[in-house]
Amino acid sequence: MAKILVTYYTRSGHTQALAEAVRDGAAETAGAEVDFKPIAQVKAADLMGYDAIVIGSPVYYGTMAWEIKKLIDESVAYHGKLDGKVGGAFCTSANLAGGNETCVLDILNCLLVHGMVVKGVARGDHYGPVGINVPDDRATRHGREYGAMVAELAVKLHG
Amino acid sequence: MAKILVTYYTRSGHTQALAEAVRDGAAETAGAEVDFKPIAQVKAADLMGYDAIVIGSPVYYGTMAWEIKKLIDESVAYHGKLDGKVGGAFCTSANLAGGNETCVLDILNCLLVHGMVVKGVARGDHYGPVGINVPDDRATRHGREYGAMVAELAVKLHG
Amino acid sequence: MAKILVTYYTRSGHTQALAEAVRDGAAETAGAEVDFKPIAQVKAADLMGYDAIVIGSPVYYGTMAWEIKKLIDESVAYHGKLDGKVGGAFCTSANLAGGNETCVLDILNCLLVHGMVVKGVARGDHYGPVGINVPDDRATRHGREYGAMVAELAVKLHG
Amino acid sequence: MAKILVTYYTRSGHTQALAEAVRDGAAETAGAEVDFKPIAQVKAADLMGYDAIVIGSPVYYGTMAWEIKKLIDESVAYHGKLDGKVGGAFCTSANLAGGNETCVLDILNCLLVHGMVVKGVARGDHYGPVGINVPDDRATRHGREYGAMVAELAVKLHG
Repeated sequence: MAKILVTYYTRSGHTQALAEAVRDGAAETAGAEVDFKPIAQVKAADLMGYDAIVIGSPVYYGTMAWEIKKLIDESVAYHGKLDGKVGGAFCTSANLAGGNETCVLDILNCLLVHGMVVKGVARGDHYGPVGINVPDDRATRHGREYGAMVAELAVKLHG
Repeated sequence: MAKILVTYYTRSGHTQALAEAVRDGAAETAGAEVDFKPIAQVKAADLMGYDAIVIGSPVYYGTMAWEIKKLIDESVAYHGKLDGKVGGAFCTSANLAGGNETCVLDILNCLLVHGMVVKGVARGDHYGPVGINVPDDRATRHGREYGAMVAELAVKLHG
Repeated sequence: MAKILVTYYTRSGHTQALAEAVRDGAAETAGAEVDFKPIAQVKAADLMGYDAIVIGSPVYYGTMAWEIKKLIDESVAYHGKLDGKVGGAFCTSANLAGGNETCVLDILNCLLVHGMVVKGVARGDHYGPVGINVPDDRATRHGREYGAMVAELAVKLHG
Repeated sequence: MAKILVTYYTRSGHTQALAEAVRDGAAETAGAEVDFKPIAQVKAADLMGYDAIVIGSPVYYGTMAWEIKKLIDESVAYHGKLDGKVGGAFCTSANLAGGNETCVLDILNCLLVHGMVVKGVARGDHYGPVGINVPDDRATRHGREYGAMVAELAVKLHG
């Protein structure tokens, strides 16, 4: 089994809703086992226990909420130990060009610095799923597909 | 008077439509004089003649069309001479998270490397206007406001 | 007079050293008055009092330290009120391609979302000064020049 | 066997030198077979024939040379067919903060839009190898290690 963590920060509930779609897509993948937690319940040491880590954030000023960044900064204690694991990112915001792609890519950059593996999306939200306000059918579908895609890659590499 | 160039590459006509909105916003600005040209009619040497340069591209693989990049690469012959001029960028694509922000920011990065001045948008498309397919009212309004904003900054700095 | 804030987060002292160079360059600029403070002594409300804000961070995972992001997240209470002010960013890291440019650009993106004005550097560190470990002569010179450049723009726009 | 393409654009020879290091690292990997070509000898249709594609560019205005982007734009004829292949990027420039990371990431973004898989580097140039002028021992070593890392991932996923 490949162990997948889907974690998120939320205030309005929008990012949690998109996170649930990502989780559902991952959970339907054969060979994947999914943990689903708000970021406040994740400690840096916990990250070692997963084959894939998918992180969602509301977009604040074009990048992730500081609560997400804090966990990533603390993960430096384990630098090198996430190498080769699979990573993913998603976000929600209030606007079409509201810093969504930069937020997703900033999270992905953090995961690349950890030596992690990320995959883009040929048809859909290319860098990772984006929801505007309450995730609509489009965003939910992209979230579900993304969760499945990340989980399949984790199963292939680590299952 | 501050001289503004609004230039663009287009195949479907979508980027041209958004370019027209940007041009209209700039042209309504007191003290601004606007040239409006497809990129094929702009030579690198022409860029020296403007106080502000605003570039629009369709999004191809998350960044600008090569036809835009070619002009920028050729502008190296004048490196240092665009320093302090005002820059701006906009794009159109087929998808909400279709590489739009990365395209706008890649153009802005090119302009920053030239030592140019860029301004973000507190309310609207934060890095520069984005249209999805045929620019709708939202995109057209953002384009118009952006054109005016860039022109006002050019008038302030160079008018 | 244009009021400039140079603020930074530091653990090793490297970012503070580069911040001092940025401050010195700004302070030598005619018409500029500089405040110099660690980020812990800056409140979001304080940002309203400046014409230019320059922020420095060590690079953690390709972007700014969470302590910097926390202040930026809190500045949402004043969203729209920084519009038109001048912004800048710099960083220090341990490696040549250690996430330096992405860190500087992430800070600049935050400032663009606030509607702020940023300027690139035609000759030097293009997006903003970068130091590797203890800032050497090269980094210190770039820091000084950048501080002066940002201060001059602030004086031009708001002095 | 996993088939790897290492392709590059060069004018000064610097990017070719780094490309050779990447090629050497890939070629030493068990199960990998490497083609090495300047971008002018690569057609978009050729990309289908590889399990991994690694692209190197000199940095021009913070992003790839237009000659590289042209090939990527033409690859749209095969959109969806590169999904799941492994991608990588590297660059050379004249300056420490010369747009190197943005160049590497722009190429990686293009590959992500194709649905490709990319991996970061925990110890080294985090997003992909960067050389300043003639690649020195540091850059050459990073290039070699990166070539091997990409090839290993291609063998794992497609060998």
